[in-house]
Amino acid sequence: MSSFSRFTPLINSLPTTIPFIGPEAIERSRGLKVKARIGANENGFGPSPKAIAAMEQAARETWQYADPENYDLRVALAAHLGVTPNHLNVGGGIDGLLGLIVRMIVLPGTPVVTSLGGYPTFNFQVAGFGGRLVAVPYKNDHEDLEGLLDAVKRENAPLVYVANPDNPMGSWHSAEKIVAFAKALPETALLILDEAYGETAPAGSIPSIESLIDLPNVIRTRTFSKAYGMAGSRVGYAISTPENANAFDKIRNHFGMNRIAIAAAMAALADRDYLEATLTRVKSARDRIADIARANQLSPLPSATNFVAIDTGRDGPYSRAIVDGLMEEGVFIRLPGVAPLNRCIRVSVGPEADLSLFEDALPRVLRRLG
Amino acid sequence: MSSFSRFTPLINSLPTTIPFIGPEAIERSRGLKVKARIGANENGFGPSPKAIAAMEQAARETWQYADPENYDLRVALAAHLGVTPNHLNVGGGIDGLLGLIVRMIVLPGTPVVTSLGGYPTFNFQVAGFGGRLVAVPYKNDHEDLEGLLDAVKRENAPLVYVANPDNPMGSWHSAEKIVAFAKALPETALLILDEAYGETAPAGSIPSIESLIDLPNVIRTRTFSKAYGMAGSRVGYAISTPENANAFDKIRNHFGMNRIAIAAAMAALADRDYLEATLTRVKSARDRIADIARANQLSPLPSATNFVAIDTGRDGPYSRAIVDGLMEEGVFIRLPGVAPLNRCIRVSVGPEADLSLFEDALPRVLRRLG
Repeated sequence: MSSFSRFTPLINSLPTTIPFIGPEAIERSRGLKVKARIGANENGFGPSPKAIAAMEQAARETWQYADPENYDLRVALAAHLGVTPNHLNVGGGIDGLLGLIVRMIVLPGTPVVTSLGGYPTFNFQVAGFGGRLVAVPYKNDHEDLEGLLDAVKRENAPLVYVANPDNPMGSWHSAEKIVAFAKALPETALLILDEAYGETAPAGSIPSIESLIDLPNVIRTRTFSKAYGMAGSRVGYAISTPENANAFDKIRNHFGMNRIAIAAAMAALADRDYLEATLTRVKSARDRIADIARANQLSPLPSATNFVAIDTGRDGPYSRAIVDGLMEEGVFIRLPGVAPLNRCIRVSVGPEADLSLFEDALPRVLRRLG
Repeated sequence: MSSFSRFTPLINSLPTTIPFIGPEAIERSRGLKVKARIGANENGFGPSPKAIAAMEQAARETWQYADPENYDLRVALAAHLGVTPNHLNVGGGIDGLLGLIVRMIVLPGTPVVTSLGGYPTFNFQVAGFGGRLVAVPYKNDHEDLEGLLDAVKRENAPLVYVANPDNPMGSWHSAEKIVAFAKALPETALLILDEAYGETAPAGSIPSIESLIDLPNVIRTRTFSKAYGMAGSRVGYAISTPENANAFDKIRNHFGMNRIAIAAAMAALADRDYLEATLTRVKSARDRIADIARANQLSPLPSATNFVAIDTGRDGPYSRAIVDGLMEEGVFIRLPGVAPLNRCIRVSVGPEADLSLFEDALPRVLRRLG
């Protein structure tokens, strides 16, 4: 017995499962080398050259803590979004923000509503604070807004998570439906509207800022990890009422942000041309992934994100075998965690060289599996 | 009312106080410009040039998440320390690790022992989980190990915090005393031994790794923020038993580390020559700060850290007036938060140009105050 004897009962009860296994761990455990890193919904097109230049510049200043108020970035984001800096919290990626929001609301036994097969890191955070997950099945590969609303009411849940666009399926709802869902929720239920993939979504799918900003039971989360190509920087932000933003300040790690990452986010946000170019590349890459799928008699799902879910027409073990087989060839992709979503594999966009490796390897893997 | 209605009672009860106000916020609120940033115990000598090169290199890879297992850094640290990677957790600075440790142990009402005037961010984390702080006064400007032990026993506290060397006084205990303290603690009390300033401490003050590594009720925390000069990178690590390390993994944000910061930490750790050179510079700068204090009829305290506490011979309001007066001149320093420690001001080491600004401004400020 070399564990401390008085961890909380909750900590002792938690399993050691983690949300995702990283590609590095797969490389180490299987003795393989990733050649095409298109599994974690990163963005292989990378950040703006201006963001890279800002990082190089800021490297010399890394002896200084970042401004604990993240003031300059909040001002820049506020101008971009048309809100005030007081509507915004900056955190260590959406993952970090999800941890804070869950902590603000969830006590042991608190019911929390999400979609069955939705974002594992949210589930991990809920479990980590002892919440009871109430998972609503997807409906036609979309998060089931009616089902989620019913579950919130039935359980009197104080917290519900919706990603629009969705991960891992890449599907989306219209802005109108999302706003109607938010307004139909009881005021006693807080909606986390995760818009990690908002920039890559089609017009009409992301609610305007104004449409939700005054609702005290909505917190929207966004990130520099996806369209901006800076997953390794860990910069996300939450948009909510100033009073809700103040609640974050009561518990967040004020000196937790990386100074270089903040400088990079400022530069990335300002470079709208590069973002536009990225969005064009993302769209092309999605089309390319879909073409590769179809050429192999698989069915790509429509996607509003930087990845494409591909229906294999079979079951989870088959998808898992494809993922494992591709990894043998150095192509790292993932699959959704639960049935029936896991009849699909999930391929992230990336540069042409990466997608060509996928294109080369996929038919070989499928042939081997038979 | 535009705050969500169902935050936990704890969240609603928390004040909006924050651990520290950053120099940037002071600049904004007072319309001043910091010329000498020697208040936050940063290290103006900066990181190794090899760490800067590693950051510049890694900037191009920031589209990738960092390895969630932080494997390479843990392997490098393990080799450096003579432990296994399984004894180590990497986190977002010691601040981030403190939040996790507190969360693992503290429930509303749990007594937690620390020193009166000790690290405010630890207190912030304890408050943030509803713990009840039991603060033991310093004794002759040292953390009072006997008093802390008595308080732990009296309160049956499961958690006690000790920094060795200490912040904000810069004092230290011998390794022998620290080990004796750790071993005298009930097994039901976990010691956070914060060694943020361990590298700058004199020989004989830091317990060997072996002396504490098998104690399940000790977690040691260290950082790249101080001697390694990378406060803005937010990389700290905890040394404990593998079983305790496993508890961190149950709740930490696995994808929370900045990829550039990890690369920088690897390079900084490897550059022992640069660290040695920094330690020489830190020692010289401490002597220089002490000389400046004495030249102004103030009394520098002995320091094992990268800062010097200077006894003004008067009270907290007087120290505060010195700090405010120096800020008027562009010299950012801080003072301890409570009496009697706040009869001192606290000046961090930095390059000669910064200390010269301090040297120039201090007599003027003292003269003005009379």
